[in-house]
Amino acid sequence: MAQKATFYHAGCPVCLDAERQLAFSLDPSRFEVEIVHLGEQKNRVLEAEQMGVTSVPALVIGTQPYHINFGAALADLK
Amino acid sequence: MAQKATFYHAGCPVCLDAERQLAFSLDPSRFEVEIVHLGEQKNRVLEAEQMGVTSVPALVIGTQPYHINFGAALADLK
Repeated sequence: MAQKATFYHAGCPVCLDAERQLAFSLDPSRFEVEIVHLGEQKNRVLEAEQMGVTSVPALVIGTQPYHINFGAALADLK
Repeated sequence: MAQKATFYHAGCPVCLDAERQLAFSLDPSRFEVEIVHLGEQKNRVLEAEQMGVTSVPALVIGTQPYHINFGAALADLK
């Protein structure tokens, strides 16, 4: 069964392109990737916070958050 | 032809385990992953710097560096 991988971001175009490349570089036979735009889906900010996300962009694989390239603080999205 | 992906780190055990999971989660049919321990291979610090790496752990896919989880500054490894 594929493991869940969630890519949280806030829509910044430059970092979006670079970071999507990372999210879509994961092994498709092992991971089911979901992209979540927290600027548009504010109802999922709490979910991201509960997964240990403190800044975006962040990629959560299973329960492990990977914060990428010193992004914007999650608090700024509330 | 598989694209090169290089995972630079400095050997911290906790982050090592988490970040290797990210490096080895890449699609093996599209990426050739190399792990570089900059604490042991100091001769490759300049290379990492030239790839745009400013802190470790970092994953470089092609020419795009992804700094992960606010790691140690590359300068501390010189």
